[in-house]
Amino acid sequence: MARITIHDIAKELNTSPSTVSKALNDHPSISVATKELIKTAAQNLNYKQNRLASSLRSGRTNIIGIVIPSSEIGFFAAVVHGIERLARTKGYNVLLFQSTENGEYEVEGIETLLQTSVDGIIASIAMETTNYDHFLEVKKRKVPLVLFDRTKDELKAPSVVVDDYKGAFMATEHLIQQGYNRIAHISGPQHIKIFNDRLCGYVDALRSNNLTVDDDLIQYGKNSVESGRMGAEYLFNSSKKPDAIFAAEDFTGLGALQYIKKQGYKMPEQIGMVGFGNESFSPYVTPSLSTIDQQAPQMGEEAFNLFLEALAQKNNSTAPTLELEQPKKIVLDPVLVVRESSDRKRENHS
Amino acid sequence: MARITIHDIAKELNTSPSTVSKALNDHPSISVATKELIKTAAQNLNYKQNRLASSLRSGRTNIIGIVIPSSEIGFFAAVVHGIERLARTKGYNVLLFQSTENGEYEVEGIETLLQTSVDGIIASIAMETTNYDHFLEVKKRKVPLVLFDRTKDELKAPSVVVDDYKGAFMATEHLIQQGYNRIAHISGPQHIKIFNDRLCGYVDALRSNNLTVDDDLIQYGKNSVESGRMGAEYLFNSSKKPDAIFAAEDFTGLGALQYIKKQGYKMPEQIGMVGFGNESFSPYVTPSLSTIDQQAPQMGEEAFNLFLEALAQKNNSTAPTLELEQPKKIVLDPVLVVRESSDRKRENHS
Repeated sequence: MARITIHDIAKELNTSPSTVSKALNDHPSISVATKELIKTAAQNLNYKQNRLASSLRSGRTNIIGIVIPSSEIGFFAAVVHGIERLARTKGYNVLLFQSTENGEYEVEGIETLLQTSVDGIIASIAMETTNYDHFLEVKKRKVPLVLFDRTKDELKAPSVVVDDYKGAFMATEHLIQQGYNRIAHISGPQHIKIFNDRLCGYVDALRSNNLTVDDDLIQYGKNSVESGRMGAEYLFNSSKKPDAIFAAEDFTGLGALQYIKKQGYKMPEQIGMVGFGNESFSPYVTPSLSTIDQQAPQMGEEAFNLFLEALAQKNNSTAPTLELEQPKKIVLDPVLVVRESSDRKRENHS
Repeated sequence: MARITIHDIAKELNTSPSTVSKALNDHPSISVATKELIKTAAQNLNYKQNRLASSLRSGRTNIIGIVIPSSEIGFFAAVVHGIERLARTKGYNVLLFQSTENGEYEVEGIETLLQTSVDGIIASIAMETTNYDHFLEVKKRKVPLVLFDRTKDELKAPSVVVDDYKGAFMATEHLIQQGYNRIAHISGPQHIKIFNDRLCGYVDALRSNNLTVDDDLIQYGKNSVESGRMGAEYLFNSSKKPDAIFAAEDFTGLGALQYIKKQGYKMPEQIGMVGFGNESFSPYVTPSLSTIDQQAPQMGEEAFNLFLEALAQKNNSTAPTLELEQPKKIVLDPVLVVRESSDRKRENHS
């Protein structure tokens, strides 16, 4: 099927292609009635404007770029789907770049998206990123930048995060309420704010429940199944065995769970476990893994809304003092998801 | 840190910016020795060419676009990582678009990538795609197009697939060798070639092992956990209960596995199960799920190599007869991964 052009529409309405073009682009010289007539005909003929031409006219591409560490982490994939769902209803298309946690690749990704003239960038920062010049470059070019989950306050970009401290507090307090009292924590790299926040939530939950904080029960892992397995092995071979583990994310939790099962401990009867992130595998492992849900789809939608706000602000901006304002930061509430790995009370009652 | 420009390099070497620019772009008016001097200085100063300017000069963007149904399907995420890994070593950046199995979104994705002037497109076709004009448009614009996994012969694009028929044959024959003889199959939508190939592999494996093909043991599902659960429920409530299931992909297998466990059957002792796709959750469910691995990273690398070949062909093309040739089709061998869900012989011996 040949593509419908403005010439086809002009022929259909017995007018000129230039009138059609002007009408479709809301040119003031065309009357409202004619515009409506031409737009209806265009719709009926299933006419689609040439994207590149239309983008050159408007100075917009209607493309949003996303940079994430990896879509193999279910949380990021789910945030992206949240962004996509809302973006589609607003006429935007979404292109995705994966940094694989590598700072240099992240720079490449940002440059690639700037090169393709995206209307905005939504990003979650790679674990290995130490220099933030590429994000500053985005701001310098006045391309709206929104951060989510792995953010950096110094960049002064609007952002959306989940309350990691609160999520960790909830996870730890849940384990305490289930009757565990030697609760270990396997954390992640501490230069990443979310892992430090989760550590602090864990510590404060113990303290506010009058439990001792024991440094020997805190391990610093690397956010992987293997690292979770090693962390659990270390904890269970020490003189101070824990009776529960709160893992800073589900991959770590999965590794620890595998180790504990292999050692023959019963879960949740002898050992309890809560992860963080509600990964796609977490309901399906045995025992199913209790975790903290980060409301990923909602995070994606909020991030896209922040982009729209930034875009509107950019277009309406008259005051040059915007940079002085605190950028908007949306903090979502985490949700505790109780599954078999920590549900000791239900086990006892059944 | 300010970005290094050709002016900085010129100052450093006491020459003109235009000489630096010409040298960096291999202009014939500059001597080999000078080029080397300037390139070394550029490297030492950590100079990066302005991508957009450099792309305008070369007519290339060094961006590859990928269109996949969803990166939440581990197989697609793994193929993308395979493409990315190789693409990076060749100086290409990869942008990803997800169709979420929707034909209209796929059209949007292709248009978006064409709009961003990618050097090539690597795609796996959405489940709901029925019209292929958008792919024909890619070819018309002479943008190299490579398909993988979900391909369409009529598009005459180079492609890379796994031998789905063979994989299904291997999975079914493995179940037969484990002593199962009432093997059911939960398939996917039959207009998608891979699911029809897997059905045929299943049927032929039964036949070549002198087992009856029973239509009542074949269910047509929708590639989801829920659909697998429903398929298994139907099979186990019929008068002809199976003693094993070969599922056309792992999500379906997972749903069937959950149903069978819930019914109290022992796996693999009473019921055997093999999936297809080696999803990331498959080693971690209980019992761990036997499956067919599709060599996703290798598939990604082969797809990228096919892109490079297509690009070279495009650049060197003198003969207008290329379209008459059969496009190259790479068929990878599937790999049987035996795990707990079907390993009855090891169970018996242990």
